[in-house]
Amino acid sequence: MTANRPLILLTNDDGIHAEGIRYLTIAMEHVGEYWVVAPEAEQSAVGHSITLYDPIKAHEISKNGSFYGYGISGTPADSVKLAIHSLLPRVPDLVISGINNGANVGINVLYSGTVSAATEAAILGVPAMAVSLAQKKNPPFQWVVPHVERLALWLLKFGLPPGVALNVNIPAIPPEALRGYKLTRQRLAKMRESFEEREDPRGNRYYWLSGEVPIEESDDSLDATALNDGFVSITPLFYDLTAHSHLQDLATALKNLT
Amino acid sequence: MTANRPLILLTNDDGIHAEGIRYLTIAMEHVGEYWVVAPEAEQSAVGHSITLYDPIKAHEISKNGSFYGYGISGTPADSVKLAIHSLLPRVPDLVISGINNGANVGINVLYSGTVSAATEAAILGVPAMAVSLAQKKNPPFQWVVPHVERLALWLLKFGLPPGVALNVNIPAIPPEALRGYKLTRQRLAKMRESFEEREDPRGNRYYWLSGEVPIEESDDSLDATALNDGFVSITPLFYDLTAHSHLQDLATALKNLT
Repeated sequence: MTANRPLILLTNDDGIHAEGIRYLTIAMEHVGEYWVVAPEAEQSAVGHSITLYDPIKAHEISKNGSFYGYGISGTPADSVKLAIHSLLPRVPDLVISGINNGANVGINVLYSGTVSAATEAAILGVPAMAVSLAQKKNPPFQWVVPHVERLALWLLKFGLPPGVALNVNIPAIPPEALRGYKLTRQRLAKMRESFEEREDPRGNRYYWLSGEVPIEESDDSLDATALNDGFVSITPLFYDLTAHSHLQDLATALKNLT
Repeated sequence: MTANRPLILLTNDDGIHAEGIRYLTIAMEHVGEYWVVAPEAEQSAVGHSITLYDPIKAHEISKNGSFYGYGISGTPADSVKLAIHSLLPRVPDLVISGINNGANVGINVLYSGTVSAATEAAILGVPAMAVSLAQKKNPPFQWVVPHVERLALWLLKFGLPPGVALNVNIPAIPPEALRGYKLTRQRLAKMRESFEEREDPRGNRYYWLSGEVPIEESDDSLDATALNDGFVSITPLFYDLTAHSHLQDLATALKNLT
């Protein structure tokens, strides 16, 4: 945090015109100076994509006659990279991605553009959080605003360990029903998913991914469980995919290879 | 491994018509029955994307007059999901993704479609490896074939811990110069990257991501270092993004929030 007003980058994967990111700007009113840099089009489930083989376009977007931010032709991770390296006047003090309509917990964390934007900021050394609200249709974003403000002020004051980003999921329940904040782990159970096969009018087969009901687990230290139990779930994420606990036994197993 | 011939799913992110995946089929000739299910178009740097809001089309692809595999309208992770859930006659014994032209080490592991296909297989409970060759232009894929065959047979015999996938990177050096196999960790250092700003004929700004030179590190347990040193780098990956080593101190820090 600088002596001046903190600089906050706001981004998302639902596009710069989404309602969720507008509520982030409302949450930032008393926190600091914010810049909105986000994909122009919706980019859900893009995972941690970046654009290498196309140029990235950035358009100035106005709302109610004044500058609102930059709409980007790329992905959420592109938005964070471009904002930090080129568009912003200086490296921001905080990056917030969201508000996503629908939870980003469990395996979905891997597919989430919202989360990947926060991870990208963490890689670039900026404290970051992804914020999701666990309701897809007509999400009550106004309930999320005080949490975002509170968490942002906390992050600006205390920071995060290097490389760590927070994945914040908020239950879609009235504020008085909320049970508090809980630090959680990513649930790792796979989904019970399947594809629905259909045929188009020309006889070609196509498939819809469906039935993504997660397999139930009752461990209340997990992101999905805490969320279901009425807590704001806060999972610290780190971008090291190495299976550290298996390095030893795999080194042994590898002796059978050579 | 079943009593019958093992069933192997081959996929990639460069598209079903890429040279790299054809070399995987060559490597499988004496290993088992293989099915090719891969994106129809090139999908590099798609990260761990899945297609939720569009149907996925699957076309039968022939080569030299006989069935070669399925071209998919989605991403590498989609290909793995659809193949395992719908297209293949049974759950495969092994999934191999590649051969990518260009290394997938360090931070790039997060952006790699090749790697995400292997990770997706691991989530679905199938042993998997991603294979990349560290040369982008005219990669000498023929040098990779014996490694893929050898590693595949080893994986079919010994398996992998649940949820783990291997990220295999092979140096583009003649077989006689190769120094062996090495078990490695993902390098976590960020890139020294920047955007090159240009202007189109209509005066609109656009940006190219460039200067992705990785910051050098000399730890030889890292994927990038082992590869540079002439080893086949084998990194076990696990899809848990939780920053486990920071759960304790963040739980303490969180007390300042409430």
